[in-house]
Amino acid sequence: MTVIRDGEVTLPFDPADRAEAGVTFIGRIRSPWAKGDSPRNLRQARESGKAARIELDLAYIPALEGLDPGRQVILLYWMDKSPRTLAVQRPRHSTGPRGTFSLRSPARPNPIALSVVRLTSIDRDTGVVGIDAIDCYDGTPLLDIKPWMPSIDVPPGWQPDA
Amino acid sequence: MTVIRDGEVTLPFDPADRAEAGVTFIGRIRSPWAKGDSPRNLRQARESGKAARIELDLAYIPALEGLDPGRQVILLYWMDKSPRTLAVQRPRHSTGPRGTFSLRSPARPNPIALSVVRLTSIDRDTGVVGIDAIDCYDGTPLLDIKPWMPSIDVPPGWQPDA
Repeated sequence: MTVIRDGEVTLPFDPADRAEAGVTFIGRIRSPWAKGDSPRNLRQARESGKAARIELDLAYIPALEGLDPGRQVILLYWMDKSPRTLAVQRPRHSTGPRGTFSLRSPARPNPIALSVVRLTSIDRDTGVVGIDAIDCYDGTPLLDIKPWMPSIDVPPGWQPDA
Repeated sequence: MTVIRDGEVTLPFDPADRAEAGVTFIGRIRSPWAKGDSPRNLRQARESGKAARIELDLAYIPALEGLDPGRQVILLYWMDKSPRTLAVQRPRHSTGPRGTFSLRSPARPNPIALSVVRLTSIDRDTGVVGIDAIDCYDGTPLLDIKPWMPSIDVPPGWQPDA
């Protein structure tokens, strides 16, 4: 059951009841995290020094061709434990209510999360792919792997802080 | 029908027949592009100088709270015209066959694309949200809007080319 906190606003329907297309799970993410002890975000996960891995379904192993350890990739995964009905929410570490689309909260109409991670190993026999870090729960279903491409994934003119 | 080019490898099943969770469409992307005349990627779309917009379903307008014009956001959208069966493919502009997960091709097991774009306007009455550019077809279903956060979306230590 979803507990609604003060200032939160729900949608007039549950997006889970309005499927317009279906996703398939291409594998699972194996992480050190369980509900309750997970890091707040990818940065914290990385600072923990704990690595993680993907267990890719065997059928998708040929699709890894062209990727190598060291490559930065975008993972898309399905936050299957998250409520989908919150339009305005108040995450635990937030000061006040915020629109879902201004947050990276896993609670969203389509609970698809994304993380930019570094590949550390690829086993083309077993489909086990090492990654430097991830902040999702162990067993989270994986939807996609894409190469991270700074020419399109970093806004034009953006500079890191000095 | 999917035309298989030389060197391409298909999955032993169609992921469209293996839905394990459902996505809902939160709106549509209105772009200047139709099949056949679309830019090769987001960079080309931006260089065309042609803007685009989101038409968000009215129920999701409250979820925009906290976003303002000028903000960089990540859009996730559903490439509903793309085949899902290619594990190794040879895009038109590629030199040889490549694994799907090493490409940003719209043809992938879950045809979810992502673009980092800049918000140019937000109409909180109509749900129309202006964006600086996009490379998808007009009418593409939208799945999610997330704030782009350089602290997690840019790999640690990455620097733009001088």
